[in-house]
Amino acid sequence: MQIAMVGLGRMGANMVRRLLRDGHECHVYDVSPDAVAGLEQEGAHGARSLKELVAGLAAPRAVWLMLPAAITGATVTQLLDLLSPGDAIVDGGNSSYRDDIDRAEVASGRDVDYVDCGTSGGVWGLERGYCLMVGGPDRAVNRLTPVFATLAPGVDAAPRTPGRTGDPTPAEQGWLHCGPSGAGHFVKMVHNGIEYALMAAYAEGLNIIKGAGAGARPQEADAETAPLRDPRYYPYDAIDLAEVAEVWRRGSVVGSWLLDLTAEALRADPGLEQFTGRVSDSGEGRWTSIAAIEEGVSAPLLTAALYSRFASRGSELFADKVQSAQRLEFGGHVEKPRS
Amino acid sequence: MQIAMVGLGRMGANMVRRLLRDGHECHVYDVSPDAVAGLEQEGAHGARSLKELVAGLAAPRAVWLMLPAAITGATVTQLLDLLSPGDAIVDGGNSSYRDDIDRAEVASGRDVDYVDCGTSGGVWGLERGYCLMVGGPDRAVNRLTPVFATLAPGVDAAPRTPGRTGDPTPAEQGWLHCGPSGAGHFVKMVHNGIEYALMAAYAEGLNIIKGAGAGARPQEADAETAPLRDPRYYPYDAIDLAEVAEVWRRGSVVGSWLLDLTAEALRADPGLEQFTGRVSDSGEGRWTSIAAIEEGVSAPLLTAALYSRFASRGSELFADKVQSAQRLEFGGHVEKPRS
Amino acid sequence: MQIAMVGLGRMGANMVRRLLRDGHECHVYDVSPDAVAGLEQEGAHGARSLKELVAGLAAPRAVWLMLPAAITGATVTQLLDLLSPGDAIVDGGNSSYRDDIDRAEVASGRDVDYVDCGTSGGVWGLERGYCLMVGGPDRAVNRLTPVFATLAPGVDAAPRTPGRTGDPTPAEQGWLHCGPSGAGHFVKMVHNGIEYALMAAYAEGLNIIKGAGAGARPQEADAETAPLRDPRYYPYDAIDLAEVAEVWRRGSVVGSWLLDLTAEALRADPGLEQFTGRVSDSGEGRWTSIAAIEEGVSAPLLTAALYSRFASRGSELFADKVQSAQRLEFGGHVEKPRS
Amino acid sequence: MQIAMVGLGRMGANMVRRLLRDGHECHVYDVSPDAVAGLEQEGAHGARSLKELVAGLAAPRAVWLMLPAAITGATVTQLLDLLSPGDAIVDGGNSSYRDDIDRAEVASGRDVDYVDCGTSGGVWGLERGYCLMVGGPDRAVNRLTPVFATLAPGVDAAPRTPGRTGDPTPAEQGWLHCGPSGAGHFVKMVHNGIEYALMAAYAEGLNIIKGAGAGARPQEADAETAPLRDPRYYPYDAIDLAEVAEVWRRGSVVGSWLLDLTAEALRADPGLEQFTGRVSDSGEGRWTSIAAIEEGVSAPLLTAALYSRFASRGSELFADKVQSAQRLEFGGHVEKPRS
Repeated sequence: MQIAMVGLGRMGANMVRRLLRDGHECHVYDVSPDAVAGLEQEGAHGARSLKELVAGLAAPRAVWLMLPAAITGATVTQLLDLLSPGDAIVDGGNSSYRDDIDRAEVASGRDVDYVDCGTSGGVWGLERGYCLMVGGPDRAVNRLTPVFATLAPGVDAAPRTPGRTGDPTPAEQGWLHCGPSGAGHFVKMVHNGIEYALMAAYAEGLNIIKGAGAGARPQEADAETAPLRDPRYYPYDAIDLAEVAEVWRRGSVVGSWLLDLTAEALRADPGLEQFTGRVSDSGEGRWTSIAAIEEGVSAPLLTAALYSRFASRGSELFADKVQSAQRLEFGGHVEKPRS
Repeated sequence: MQIAMVGLGRMGANMVRRLLRDGHECHVYDVSPDAVAGLEQEGAHGARSLKELVAGLAAPRAVWLMLPAAITGATVTQLLDLLSPGDAIVDGGNSSYRDDIDRAEVASGRDVDYVDCGTSGGVWGLERGYCLMVGGPDRAVNRLTPVFATLAPGVDAAPRTPGRTGDPTPAEQGWLHCGPSGAGHFVKMVHNGIEYALMAAYAEGLNIIKGAGAGARPQEADAETAPLRDPRYYPYDAIDLAEVAEVWRRGSVVGSWLLDLTAEALRADPGLEQFTGRVSDSGEGRWTSIAAIEEGVSAPLLTAALYSRFASRGSELFADKVQSAQRLEFGGHVEKPRS
Repeated sequence: MQIAMVGLGRMGANMVRRLLRDGHECHVYDVSPDAVAGLEQEGAHGARSLKELVAGLAAPRAVWLMLPAAITGATVTQLLDLLSPGDAIVDGGNSSYRDDIDRAEVASGRDVDYVDCGTSGGVWGLERGYCLMVGGPDRAVNRLTPVFATLAPGVDAAPRTPGRTGDPTPAEQGWLHCGPSGAGHFVKMVHNGIEYALMAAYAEGLNIIKGAGAGARPQEADAETAPLRDPRYYPYDAIDLAEVAEVWRRGSVVGSWLLDLTAEALRADPGLEQFTGRVSDSGEGRWTSIAAIEEGVSAPLLTAALYSRFASRGSELFADKVQSAQRLEFGGHVEKPRS
Repeated sequence: MQIAMVGLGRMGANMVRRLLRDGHECHVYDVSPDAVAGLEQEGAHGARSLKELVAGLAAPRAVWLMLPAAITGATVTQLLDLLSPGDAIVDGGNSSYRDDIDRAEVASGRDVDYVDCGTSGGVWGLERGYCLMVGGPDRAVNRLTPVFATLAPGVDAAPRTPGRTGDPTPAEQGWLHCGPSGAGHFVKMVHNGIEYALMAAYAEGLNIIKGAGAGARPQEADAETAPLRDPRYYPYDAIDLAEVAEVWRRGSVVGSWLLDLTAEALRADPGLEQFTGRVSDSGEGRWTSIAAIEEGVSAPLLTAALYSRFASRGSELFADKVQSAQRLEFGGHVEKPRS
């Protein structure tokens, strides 16, 4: 079917390629003329402005946005002035589901369907397909089904879940209409919250194995250092972490795609020397914990994963200083210098 | 090769079957004569006592224990009186790696090799193979390589990690000699600690989605209840969790074997009505957090996962009562009745 | 000085009493005529409506609101129509500091000063005085200094901090102008977040002591229960928690007013049998964790305290069921029944 | 009464002084002759060896050890060879309660009473008195009551808990016989676990206030940085933390001795510039979390406080690198450089 894509960064461009391969008619626009030209050579119809893009589409139109969250809002506003009743906007980026709810209200006032689509797959999506979590009105979601079906990985991407019979549902193909506006980004947000926790879980476990040789090292013996109670139980100073990650990939309960990637990273750089350990976060993890708090639902792991990212960037420094100061006050404990 | 198996429960019996299929000569013993008889019919050599078992083996012997942790120690003691220098004991159960270190010292005094083997795979191992994490002396581990190779899933169980070339390592086949005595169970212990956290991460995320309709329900309005600040942002009272778990299985970053199982469980019983939510723990998660603490390594997620299991069994009740009592004291807050 | 109080619940009425005692001229209003009448008998000037209240005051006026957060907004809107440029509104309740920022903007448009005042002290404030955390424009805060000084506990409420010399600052008297609009409620919000954590810290510690007899009880021995590794180290089944709380009150590092209250609660009801352990939360703890998340600052304890309150009300039930379901799937573990 | 003190560091020497002031006959020994000589000048009886110390005492003897945990065990062994049936050893240091249980068994075999005494008070104890948590046999604890009573702060150190009548209990005087051997150090251990959490709670809260000006600073805008959603709600870049700590000291719910010390530290050095934030831990916090885990009791705050200390010393670095590596693998996210 005909679909327009706005935003031709790594994600947007690859999605256009996947759509083109499957025979869809793709109209594309980006602030970078080069990005547009590149995809024109691969078979897309390029446009030099939003206005030109919309003008080239047949009603009812569908314009998919793949933009940084900070720009999406303004682009939606512009688009709403260009589109007609019955058209649809799809926000496939990393917007907050709250923005979806607000924007869908505005769009609905003009009879434009606003569809939010959480997209997982990253740099691997062109090859593996994208996992799509969709929210918004039935009218648009139904109409866009061929696009979702092409972008999604398809039913063969995983063995069928035992007990499922009959025609595969959309979820089994890798895309899901989760609910009304925002539901797609809500589910994607929680997906990312889980992702943070899965990553941190492997990281913590590998760190414990890395520290298992604590008893093989000479122990510091001063009043400021808790001694290792049984050094003989911590003799493992040579466990090969890359091999550990590798062995867990086969037959174990902790196998996952993230483990596959961890194994690859450790194989390439066993000490991870190229990294400083400054872990960024892009918003969804924060929103997930905030949602848990507002719902009154406990989420200790998801929040701990988020906090470990903050801490990796030094957010706890002042809090640590407060504790050092308290120790000096009540016990005369002088801080040990950083070694 | 020739191998003896002691303990023919679900795990031990299936491991014997997998070994028999691959042509190994299996001698078996269990306190239950029925269990022994069953495997004799499948081709194993049965024994009516540990003594008879050992007597039937050619030196250097290898006796694999697949026993509840509570019985393993006594069985090792008995075996050490029956075995000869150069023989080997393999503990494939869920022993603490500390027991391995202690037992290996004793065995070493008699020139018997003590091998610890953490085994992941559960009820799926017969079909999928077992992920084996092995610790102990080279002599025995080298000799037992054919057994490990048969029990492990094999290299085809997962796509090869990019960048790995040449002959697959044992880890790529699904088994790893992690280090000296206890190293196998240590790595298995951490594996289980990670497993707890992965499970809890999915559980928390699904719980947040389940609570996303908080704004669609009438709000309690009393001084003891924090009101939902923006009910309009929590309208999602009908997201299908089984479909969410299913869609994440294809193309997303959070795909894993545990997610596959979660999707299956939710498909079969979408509300999980058959469960009361009392989550057991079998020791390794505790030991993992203790190891982190003794090493001086932070493990907030792994410990949070453990604590959530404790809490699921009511361990926090008294602590909660203390807080209710404090609130009554300082603010005159009367506890809300359980609804 | 002249001050009006709107909202004569426990907090508001006691604050009026404390002001009257110190010679202030108090004008009072409440939706309950009885509440008004009661304070009239104690020397306050009663009003039967907001309009009448405002009419009785000399400009520049000061109207202090001591209302449930849910009603404050509407009352502010009404008041703004009655007040004149140069007047001041003080919100002494538990509003979100975000509402202060929004309302102060509106009030500022009419040249009315909006002052937010976080108030700690609860049912003890009449006697001990109230700790006041104030935000808003200097003009109003300076004018209201006599009122803050009366309500605050005064410098004698605690020994002077070593190193402080000269005239006591307002903070030393128990009230502080924290910053612009919302700063008072922001500091009060964090204060409550800390309060939650202090409470939970004592609760957890006492719970660990309560469980110290785990080794003195018969151990469950089944595959679903992790056995206590060294029962001999958990023989303490008769430690008197009320006496423990009492002994910590003198000379220890953990002495605090919350500990005093805990000791009193345990003295009165050593098993805390009257409580079910359902711990409410009134909003500030949630907002504190959300602030930490939005600032990108790690706050593991404050959030854990909040989550333990959610969990006390059953918020984790579904997450626990997910984990039980996963265990059944991968290991055939059948849930233990609740005992 | 007659009492011997071994170990004349800051704690031991001050305890001798407090005992001398109250008329007790103190015999003292330390490896440092200067330490002995100093206290001889203050009225103590000095000894040049353990043997000489014991020889100078009348049976039944009482020898109090105030030694680093690492030395206590060897000293007990030496003492047991010098003491007679009916004598008593008191370990007033920071030993693990597990060592108490083990040592008490040995001592009991010689009819020597082994008393463990957790001691809180630090550098302030000489003036404020020491909070004493005692475990061990009644015979010795009863005999030593005058010593405990002198060392403890006394009933006037805190207002009497409402509802308590009649003669003050020992707990009301600041010392408590908690139970059999080890019970004293067990309660002291949990006390320190709580202490860690109280400290971290204040530290986290102050850190959130310190970060409340996040919206007043220019925002980073790149794909690796989650933007602050509502900068207008984080304008507070000038809240005076020293004054905040001070105001909380009077009339608020979070008042405590640790807060008093925090206020003093912030007054002396508002930015805590003299500290690097490397927070040591001395063992009890670790043991408390381990006890919680072994009991199967959830202790999220106490463990989070411990982990924050580990993290302050860099224990999470490798785990953070793992997460950066994973992000690079799945999303092509290049780590932001440390600024």
